[in-house]
Amino acid sequence: MSAQVVTMGEIMLRLSPPGFKRLVQADSFEATYGGAEANVAVALCNYGLQASFVSKVPDNPVGQSAINHLRRYGVDTQYILRGGDRLGLYFLETGVSMRASQVVYDRVASSFADVNACEFDFDKILDGVSWFHTTGITPALSPKAVALTELALKTAKAKGITTSIDLNYRKKLWSKEKAETVLSTLCRYVDVCMGADPLLGFTIKDSDMTNGNLNLQGFNNMFKCMTDRFGFKCITASLRESYSASDNGWSALVYGKSRMYHTKQYNVRVVDRVGTGDSFTSGLIYGLVTGMPMTDAAEFAVAASALKHTILGDFNHASLAEVNDLMMGNESNRIQR
Amino acid sequence: MSAQVVTMGEIMLRLSPPGFKRLVQADSFEATYGGAEANVAVALCNYGLQASFVSKVPDNPVGQSAINHLRRYGVDTQYILRGGDRLGLYFLETGVSMRASQVVYDRVASSFADVNACEFDFDKILDGVSWFHTTGITPALSPKAVALTELALKTAKAKGITTSIDLNYRKKLWSKEKAETVLSTLCRYVDVCMGADPLLGFTIKDSDMTNGNLNLQGFNNMFKCMTDRFGFKCITASLRESYSASDNGWSALVYGKSRMYHTKQYNVRVVDRVGTGDSFTSGLIYGLVTGMPMTDAAEFAVAASALKHTILGDFNHASLAEVNDLMMGNESNRIQR
Amino acid sequence: MSAQVVTMGEIMLRLSPPGFKRLVQADSFEATYGGAEANVAVALCNYGLQASFVSKVPDNPVGQSAINHLRRYGVDTQYILRGGDRLGLYFLETGVSMRASQVVYDRVASSFADVNACEFDFDKILDGVSWFHTTGITPALSPKAVALTELALKTAKAKGITTSIDLNYRKKLWSKEKAETVLSTLCRYVDVCMGADPLLGFTIKDSDMTNGNLNLQGFNNMFKCMTDRFGFKCITASLRESYSASDNGWSALVYGKSRMYHTKQYNVRVVDRVGTGDSFTSGLIYGLVTGMPMTDAAEFAVAASALKHTILGDFNHASLAEVNDLMMGNESNRIQR
Amino acid sequence: MSAQVVTMGEIMLRLSPPGFKRLVQADSFEATYGGAEANVAVALCNYGLQASFVSKVPDNPVGQSAINHLRRYGVDTQYILRGGDRLGLYFLETGVSMRASQVVYDRVASSFADVNACEFDFDKILDGVSWFHTTGITPALSPKAVALTELALKTAKAKGITTSIDLNYRKKLWSKEKAETVLSTLCRYVDVCMGADPLLGFTIKDSDMTNGNLNLQGFNNMFKCMTDRFGFKCITASLRESYSASDNGWSALVYGKSRMYHTKQYNVRVVDRVGTGDSFTSGLIYGLVTGMPMTDAAEFAVAASALKHTILGDFNHASLAEVNDLMMGNESNRIQR
Amino acid sequence: MSAQVVTMGEIMLRLSPPGFKRLVQADSFEATYGGAEANVAVALCNYGLQASFVSKVPDNPVGQSAINHLRRYGVDTQYILRGGDRLGLYFLETGVSMRASQVVYDRVASSFADVNACEFDFDKILDGVSWFHTTGITPALSPKAVALTELALKTAKAKGITTSIDLNYRKKLWSKEKAETVLSTLCRYVDVCMGADPLLGFTIKDSDMTNGNLNLQGFNNMFKCMTDRFGFKCITASLRESYSASDNGWSALVYGKSRMYHTKQYNVRVVDRVGTGDSFTSGLIYGLVTGMPMTDAAEFAVAASALKHTILGDFNHASLAEVNDLMMGNESNRIQR
Amino acid sequence: MSAQVVTMGEIMLRLSPPGFKRLVQADSFEATYGGAEANVAVALCNYGLQASFVSKVPDNPVGQSAINHLRRYGVDTQYILRGGDRLGLYFLETGVSMRASQVVYDRVASSFADVNACEFDFDKILDGVSWFHTTGITPALSPKAVALTELALKTAKAKGITTSIDLNYRKKLWSKEKAETVLSTLCRYVDVCMGADPLLGFTIKDSDMTNGNLNLQGFNNMFKCMTDRFGFKCITASLRESYSASDNGWSALVYGKSRMYHTKQYNVRVVDRVGTGDSFTSGLIYGLVTGMPMTDAAEFAVAASALKHTILGDFNHASLAEVNDLMMGNESNRIQR
Repeated sequence: MSAQVVTMGEIMLRLSPPGFKRLVQADSFEATYGGAEANVAVALCNYGLQASFVSKVPDNPVGQSAINHLRRYGVDTQYILRGGDRLGLYFLETGVSMRASQVVYDRVASSFADVNACEFDFDKILDGVSWFHTTGITPALSPKAVALTELALKTAKAKGITTSIDLNYRKKLWSKEKAETVLSTLCRYVDVCMGADPLLGFTIKDSDMTNGNLNLQGFNNMFKCMTDRFGFKCITASLRESYSASDNGWSALVYGKSRMYHTKQYNVRVVDRVGTGDSFTSGLIYGLVTGMPMTDAAEFAVAASALKHTILGDFNHASLAEVNDLMMGNESNRIQR
Repeated sequence: MSAQVVTMGEIMLRLSPPGFKRLVQADSFEATYGGAEANVAVALCNYGLQASFVSKVPDNPVGQSAINHLRRYGVDTQYILRGGDRLGLYFLETGVSMRASQVVYDRVASSFADVNACEFDFDKILDGVSWFHTTGITPALSPKAVALTELALKTAKAKGITTSIDLNYRKKLWSKEKAETVLSTLCRYVDVCMGADPLLGFTIKDSDMTNGNLNLQGFNNMFKCMTDRFGFKCITASLRESYSASDNGWSALVYGKSRMYHTKQYNVRVVDRVGTGDSFTSGLIYGLVTGMPMTDAAEFAVAASALKHTILGDFNHASLAEVNDLMMGNESNRIQR
Repeated sequence: MSAQVVTMGEIMLRLSPPGFKRLVQADSFEATYGGAEANVAVALCNYGLQASFVSKVPDNPVGQSAINHLRRYGVDTQYILRGGDRLGLYFLETGVSMRASQVVYDRVASSFADVNACEFDFDKILDGVSWFHTTGITPALSPKAVALTELALKTAKAKGITTSIDLNYRKKLWSKEKAETVLSTLCRYVDVCMGADPLLGFTIKDSDMTNGNLNLQGFNNMFKCMTDRFGFKCITASLRESYSASDNGWSALVYGKSRMYHTKQYNVRVVDRVGTGDSFTSGLIYGLVTGMPMTDAAEFAVAASALKHTILGDFNHASLAEVNDLMMGNESNRIQR
Repeated sequence: MSAQVVTMGEIMLRLSPPGFKRLVQADSFEATYGGAEANVAVALCNYGLQASFVSKVPDNPVGQSAINHLRRYGVDTQYILRGGDRLGLYFLETGVSMRASQVVYDRVASSFADVNACEFDFDKILDGVSWFHTTGITPALSPKAVALTELALKTAKAKGITTSIDLNYRKKLWSKEKAETVLSTLCRYVDVCMGADPLLGFTIKDSDMTNGNLNLQGFNNMFKCMTDRFGFKCITASLRESYSASDNGWSALVYGKSRMYHTKQYNVRVVDRVGTGDSFTSGLIYGLVTGMPMTDAAEFAVAASALKHTILGDFNHASLAEVNDLMMGNESNRIQR
Repeated sequence: MSAQVVTMGEIMLRLSPPGFKRLVQADSFEATYGGAEANVAVALCNYGLQASFVSKVPDNPVGQSAINHLRRYGVDTQYILRGGDRLGLYFLETGVSMRASQVVYDRVASSFADVNACEFDFDKILDGVSWFHTTGITPALSPKAVALTELALKTAKAKGITTSIDLNYRKKLWSKEKAETVLSTLCRYVDVCMGADPLLGFTIKDSDMTNGNLNLQGFNNMFKCMTDRFGFKCITASLRESYSASDNGWSALVYGKSRMYHTKQYNVRVVDRVGTGDSFTSGLIYGLVTGMPMTDAAEFAVAASALKHTILGDFNHASLAEVNDLMMGNESNRIQR
Repeated sequence: MSAQVVTMGEIMLRLSPPGFKRLVQADSFEATYGGAEANVAVALCNYGLQASFVSKVPDNPVGQSAINHLRRYGVDTQYILRGGDRLGLYFLETGVSMRASQVVYDRVASSFADVNACEFDFDKILDGVSWFHTTGITPALSPKAVALTELALKTAKAKGITTSIDLNYRKKLWSKEKAETVLSTLCRYVDVCMGADPLLGFTIKDSDMTNGNLNLQGFNNMFKCMTDRFGFKCITASLRESYSASDNGWSALVYGKSRMYHTKQYNVRVVDRVGTGDSFTSGLIYGLVTGMPMTDAAEFAVAASALKHTILGDFNHASLAEVNDLMMGNESNRIQR
């Protein structure tokens, strides 16, 4: 059966000390796997869609374990290539209260960063697919990865597939200038843009989410400008109020057809913040692929990602039923028995 | 030495993923044992009473481990039979914030559900005993268990022993109708009734604990009706406000001699919610068996169960001194050293 | 793509105390999943074949976890039904030296034991398949399971698919008499028979594998009689010499076209004995499906299963390369770097 | 019900690094509890006898945990006093191959070492008892403990109870001279003496168990001299051949009624050596209390203690059935299923 | 290179059950090492200073592990002696919500408590040093320890080294009267005094930190009196509001040159409260040694110790950059990537 | 104080699944640190020498943890630079019986491989040092590393310091031809050469250690040729007979002053094989630095490395006393207590 959604990017081994230990205290690591686009594929399978993940991992047991982790949660892995030097990885130290979570990336020279666009047959990969998704992390990895991302988006666009990108600016990977140049080119092939990073030359005055000061009009203006320039059908931005590393407010903005919508805000206690943005993205894609109106899709997405904050690992294991329950306002959380 | 309190019911193996992992992420389980009536017996021993637990477990190392777990905390296990097919078990996924705890029961065909009333010599078991306790879960297990529960209560009543039942309706085990029929029969032998489930044909209008709307007059009316019908000497109801799966308000109502009393409310952060109702019950029994007035017993019970929310496992390991301290208002929680 | 091999049976949750702890000492369990036929499917995927597993699991996170565990290792799970009461499980205590491993089964009332043959569409499931495999454990589970096994084997036979059964007598599941009756019927549809249990009315005199006394002529006679009666194309028997629970001798006999062959014997140190028979079976099926002569297939199978003894869990994670290396006599075990 | 056997001594917290880690590598410790006399009490309960343990532990959660650990395995703990400074403890590093196990004792100033004989009412404790057991470790702890041991043995003797002592010389606790003086006095009250340490002034020439050179005649002579001097009814000595820290030969000598008997020798792979001597002692007491002839009791004891080598912790969790099986020669160790 | 700061005291093994388990539930312990003065030395090294710790540990692998733990975090351990009976230890049960943390000390007869002052060559140890720190716990251990503390302080004072003491009254170690006598003597050699325990004969009326009632004028008066009597250059007091065992308010007072300063208050969620006072002390010493004004040093210290509440173990592993960030008001806690 | 021995090389994070799990089964990793030259430095500190390790690690918590791990065991880390991209790492799967251990290196682009020789001040580093050691792994890492190694060896030689190299050929890092060229150049500065790899153009006929066929005369000839060409004062070769991945024979050859010596052979059960060669090297260096004759040093080295096989991790934590005991023939391994 064809996948309904295809995502493409790097998958990494994630190593985190147990509990609240700091990295310098660690004598063991919990091992899981994740990456922005892989996280989206897993969540979509979890909701019952068919999703395929496109990537490259080394031909050794570590690369195999990354594939196995995706298969475990139902992702189609037939288009993951094997070869190259290594699986990128990252160390995650979980924060609490006023101590922030800390990420140490170790992704240089990874198999995926070194892949050539021609190694993939996108005509076949994207055959019969409804949606293609990637993020701004992928082109940030290497010049080869820029070419790869462009080829994938271009092919998808040509086939009439809905395309999306989560801008996801990572300052440790590339400069703002470089990012702006590359992403501006890529966005020409994009229908849905996640992320209101002022990457594409737009900024919002006087908005400091951390303190709860939110310039909604500024967001609206920015979304309008972005739409004018790139022709996006939909733009989203998740909004986090960090009361502490443990307690956050969480909501989102969506913009489409010249209208902006602000979802319900949830107060979340954070078990694991990594992948929460991706869980919003997968919720939105699920909603739109299954025909929800944009505002419903946004409420589904924000409820899904609110739940993700309570789940360990990069992946969102919240079920469709749980997301729907929360969305319907059922937060009483009594044990069902 | 004779037990002062005897409780009877099923004990199950409890399997829970470590930390906040979901069941689908689990590669190992923490193993402990529990069950509504067993939990009461352990807490009473913990406070210094002699308690005996009546049940049946399979004659294999898993059944033996359940017995050992009770012995470890001082419960008399001489009246636990060995035989039958299996020990019931349940999987527990611990919730946090807006993700509710989840319980997957796997208790069909258990040794206890298949026990015949005649396998126990209640005359001997209840000899010299002050209090007999069971719950509405026990008769819900099987028709044989209904007969067993009735025999035990009837024998206790005949011997002048104080009897109590925690209604504890479990919709996965039986229908409301069936429960109402059976429990109405059993309540004829009961002195103290825990639980204000509208099981016995009574309801309260406009009371939604979850949102903090509490119709106290409605409770009072219901308690009065229940007393009129069954002749209970005491009725209790624990009240939980679920701010989230992690933070709850916790208090209780007790009713006796035509008067209702509402205890102090505690704000609790939830480490483990399973067994908190049982910890209220054991606190109340402890108070009444040791001669406290009903209102004091209720305050002891609610303080005990507030502490239980912070303790892992089904059992309440809060000590007598800790409960008394909390009851006396000492919540400052400085380390004693 | 069609599966090349389909296996059918029960998959169970396996709970084992960490390290060498006994069950009565356990405060946690390692959780994995396995079952005779599932183990075969996983190993075949591991060697690069397409394998599908047919079963039924409950529609809850425990059933889902069993499916996920199979998917992780590449098994096609589309024909696993969801429903029924529970996932069977077993407790495993790992033996060492003179203390034997101990298994406590808890599989009554499982979803699979209660499945009706008509719930599966074998015409579709077996379409384009080369080999169908099940074991004697499956019909032992329930009368429904007998009907299911017969239907599956009959359909496979009718489609010209090679069929195999591992006799795998489990005395805790049924009597010898019952087993003989049922298996004699089923064997009419079987091409390859694993196991020389004297189940089908044949016995070998003076052969005590434990002490290393092996009556090879007796085996040969028995294999001949079995072939005469059932028309098997191939029969196998694995041979274990138990020096202790930790050290075993391991070899196998295969019989086909009127000739018996005794493989090389390996001295194995046992890390995990469960599933070693299944690893022999999967090795043999792999060999025969990929066109090896019977004797080569047997050597592959015995090398594969020798390696399995060193691997934790029911599944054989030895790679094709590792099996081939061992088969070629490379046992020096230096670290490759 | 009265205990059939009473043992008296110190129980300690045992802290060991997980797996084969050395102490300097440890970041966590497995915690269990044990002590020579406690180990005997647990094993006897495990075989179905009633055993009571006499000791003193501090009145804190650590002392309570020691009591709980005994209760878990069925030991009567009503005569364990609470008070004093601390629970003794020891660190255990498990050896393997040519690296020996290492024990670091930390038992100074323990509650038990400081107990006064008058704190116990031995008349009551020993009422109706068949056997009293202690070891040479107890009087080695302090002068108070010498007085305590003498009082207990004297009282037991006066009541016609069979008394036993395991000499168990610990050079880190006292000098040979001191030990000889004290033990010679105590042995006047002893019926059964475990241990052929040349403590009491006897030596054996040319016997080096480590190398397998065993001067049986020398043992016989020593046993005869010991019997002549102290009037022992039975003397035993366990014999260990240490091929390595991981593999040992294990057998025993018993002497009584002027005859010496050498049991079967087992080759054991060592999972945990601590408590193996105590498991021999408990096996012997079990045999003699239940009426076995001395030689049978010795075979039971050596089989029981052979199994103990495969069990983690101080306690012997081998069941009666397992010991009998091994004693009957059933060592094939196939999984029963 | 000379140490810039020398601290002296006892280092203990700390044993704590994993997660929120109570001591009576523990089957394993996390092992780390700590002590008031050792904690200060580690934090100073962590900030980049050279610190040396003076103590005595037993000459066994447990003592060695304590030394190794200090070396791991950069502390100079050349002046730690080896010998004596044992390493003191303590059991820590971590509280949550209304359940307080519980500490069970087991430090009698430790190597350090029995050390003679003459075993150390303070002339050499303190050569070239800027600051010497100890606490009121040290002289509380034994009469020998009183002499040792006095010698160390006296020598430091004579060499013109800044001296500090954290009063740290431990009622389980000595009486108020004894403490007052000893500490009054020692304070004659002290420049900086941490702790406003009314140890030295001063009290504050109507101040109940637990309830947030803070009599600042009373503190000011007390600090003035203390300064008048002992000539302290600086006095500090940390202020904890315990909303629950999990959530605290945290700030501090410093007094010097006749002026009192109250720092910013932080709301902290408590992961580990042990060592938080020491983390304030080390922050203050760091600030003063590196030339900050007293008020800045106090803000650094309170920020450092606020972060410590989120870190497991006795030691403060917060980095200089993290403390500075928090001090600068950066609490938004976004992941840096 | 000056170091007595300086070693230089790469230190890596080592990640291994717990117990005998395979990499594809791992959900967590034990984390430790090691590398051929670091392992030598740790063992020397362990025996009481002063050793310093020269390397470069990234300036992040992972690099810091590597440094901390060395400090924990007493190594001087002042000459370890901070900077560059990443810490190399490797995955280790522990073999057993006929399943070999498996290593997956992930060391490309490491901070150390990219270091420039001029970043180190060898004049200072080697001041007052007696011995300098490195291995053939170091120059294999990169051209920069070749230059670095040559500079270090040349400087050491010029200062009259004894120099050693362990040839340690790693085929995954470079070709035989490249290795031969580079090592031939470096060996001009080397006094002691560990390893009889036929790297330098020499081979031995008819010697297959795996099968126990040892051509001693061939070794002698090769050593002579090597000495003639490079002027080595001493050459060593460790000899492993791999009975299985779990059981090996272990001995060594040393050659000096025209004479070859074959040490005692030990039968070792393997807990961890990684670092066993380095433990031989460190034993030899210890022996020679402390003045033992070459044959004694070799016996010390082979006993030390026999013990290392029983110790988890790269480092040898066997103590001086334990090595001496084993060397003296004390293998009985009784617990000392």
